[in-house]
Amino acid sequence: MMRIVLPLKVVTRLLALIVLIAFSASAEAQSDLLPSWNDTGPKQAIVAFVGKVTKEGSPDFVPVDERIATFDNDGTLWAEQPVYFQLLFALDRIKALAPQHPEWQTKEPFASLLKGDVKTALAGGEPAIAQIVMATHAGMTTDEFDQIVRDWIASAKHPVTKRLYTEMVYQPMLELLAYLRTNGFKTFIVSGGGIDFMRPWAEQVYGIPPEQVVGSSVKTEFQMRDGTPVLLRLPEINFIDDKAGKVIGIQQHIGRRPIAAFGNSDGDLQMLQWTTAGTGARFALIVRHTDAEREWAYDRTSSVGRLDKALDEAQAKGWTIVDMKNDWKTIFPFGGK
Amino acid sequence: MMRIVLPLKVVTRLLALIVLIAFSASAEAQSDLLPSWNDTGPKQAIVAFVGKVTKEGSPDFVPVDERIATFDNDGTLWAEQPVYFQLLFALDRIKALAPQHPEWQTKEPFASLLKGDVKTALAGGEPAIAQIVMATHAGMTTDEFDQIVRDWIASAKHPVTKRLYTEMVYQPMLELLAYLRTNGFKTFIVSGGGIDFMRPWAEQVYGIPPEQVVGSSVKTEFQMRDGTPVLLRLPEINFIDDKAGKVIGIQQHIGRRPIAAFGNSDGDLQMLQWTTAGTGARFALIVRHTDAEREWAYDRTSSVGRLDKALDEAQAKGWTIVDMKNDWKTIFPFGGK
Repeated sequence: MMRIVLPLKVVTRLLALIVLIAFSASAEAQSDLLPSWNDTGPKQAIVAFVGKVTKEGSPDFVPVDERIATFDNDGTLWAEQPVYFQLLFALDRIKALAPQHPEWQTKEPFASLLKGDVKTALAGGEPAIAQIVMATHAGMTTDEFDQIVRDWIASAKHPVTKRLYTEMVYQPMLELLAYLRTNGFKTFIVSGGGIDFMRPWAEQVYGIPPEQVVGSSVKTEFQMRDGTPVLLRLPEINFIDDKAGKVIGIQQHIGRRPIAAFGNSDGDLQMLQWTTAGTGARFALIVRHTDAEREWAYDRTSSVGRLDKALDEAQAKGWTIVDMKNDWKTIFPFGGK
Repeated sequence: MMRIVLPLKVVTRLLALIVLIAFSASAEAQSDLLPSWNDTGPKQAIVAFVGKVTKEGSPDFVPVDERIATFDNDGTLWAEQPVYFQLLFALDRIKALAPQHPEWQTKEPFASLLKGDVKTALAGGEPAIAQIVMATHAGMTTDEFDQIVRDWIASAKHPVTKRLYTEMVYQPMLELLAYLRTNGFKTFIVSGGGIDFMRPWAEQVYGIPPEQVVGSSVKTEFQMRDGTPVLLRLPEINFIDDKAGKVIGIQQHIGRRPIAAFGNSDGDLQMLQWTTAGTGARFALIVRHTDAEREWAYDRTSSVGRLDKALDEAQAKGWTIVDMKNDWKTIFPFGGK
């Protein structure tokens, strides 16, 4: 068995050598890893940034450990129209749970929802949405909620494209995630969406493991049930990971400042400000929804994914702005809607 | 530049091959990676566990992604006597900040502390400790606090050994961390200590990056100062990562259940219960402080690191118990106190 001890040392050296070879691959050659991006400004900016931070001896070189990249989810990694997909999950759950809640037949916002009148149901604003979210996201253990999400995401279909929601992801962003990881980046999701709503599928779909997902959460309570510990999800907000909350979430979960951040709406503005305020090379990118044909076109006045202040600041500060229509060859893995 | 594209593919294959070789190294041979452990029960149990969960085809095999191991810090990775080191940090900070706080000369618990009478100061119990913690851990930005901790940890000395606190770490546990990582485990700290108190040095000392540190925290507030974003630390508790809080912290930060957990006190009991309640092979270990000569000896009645209920449960459930005196050849990298 002693033969193993030497190989382990050899392995370490070989590994170091190989990592060196891999990382000395030029950014130009690696741009082949972004086939769904047109050879326009954004792709060039990404490749230039990655090239300089990964080049040993460059004044902009960043050690592998500090190559932290954070991505918004809704509207940045997957679509968010006609409404955030997590809300569609909640609506589906209301229907599924209705038989256990006869009182919902006459109680708003549930009564309208069950009649198919989403507009009236949501007219109650944030309190109505909070009621819907709590009725569907709390009252079960974390393991039970995990299974509920897995079952839904495996079968539910998008109302417009009739595709699985996990197909409604942006092919260029999947390539970008992989390209960054190939270059030693650690990729995180930092989303206003529910942390435990994203974790069950983020690893398979994005290659992002649960411990690299940051999101909004409800409070949980530790309980012993017949000698077995469970975490019960309570109908009480723990944390909202949006706007300034994204910076707080980044500090809480990651504990160091990203060198690159990717978003699409005003909810991402503070994350991009925080990222670019660090010393050394920094990268900020906004995905702008400009393709009404293959995806959706919306910005300053949209109630979902509004991009107004962050667009002004991106333009003023020279952040990279992706024009989906012009900069992306493909939108979804299956093409466009 | 095209020459790089092929090498990258080759690199991927070589990497896979090498990982395969590395991971097929027998657990027995790898036990050489634990030289500070005597060849007694705990070492044998660790090696047997790691051997079975890493063996392809074994009924206990666990994929690399799910090899999550969580470690308590105080009393498990580094010492905690005569009192938690973070409290000693706070006391040092009180002295350093006293000139800016003339009111502390007459205000408890500060007045007693400044006279060197720690016992009277702490007689105020938890409210007194909370005052000390908030006066020293809040009111500055996250970047400023990071620097304060770095400066302190680089120079402050332990009152008994006169060693740097980062030398007061357990050599066998450093080896264990590295051994687990060699076997594809991702290692996390899950401590009642302050998350931002541990992060500035955990990577260098333990090889655990900031994003794999879970701990207690204060609330923070995002502010713009002259156009630059900062996170201000507020004098308000955000989260206490102790007892049942450790399970909540694990779910919040890691999002999946560890397969192995390591602690030393009743504060770790729920983490060990949670870990061992999962399906498949599980491992729970308690470090028992039994060496009054080389370290300290304390358990059921200690105010610091009390080990009472968790010891009963460890014995009842057959968890691995390290008897420091008998199971560890070396305690600290410099030997014993």
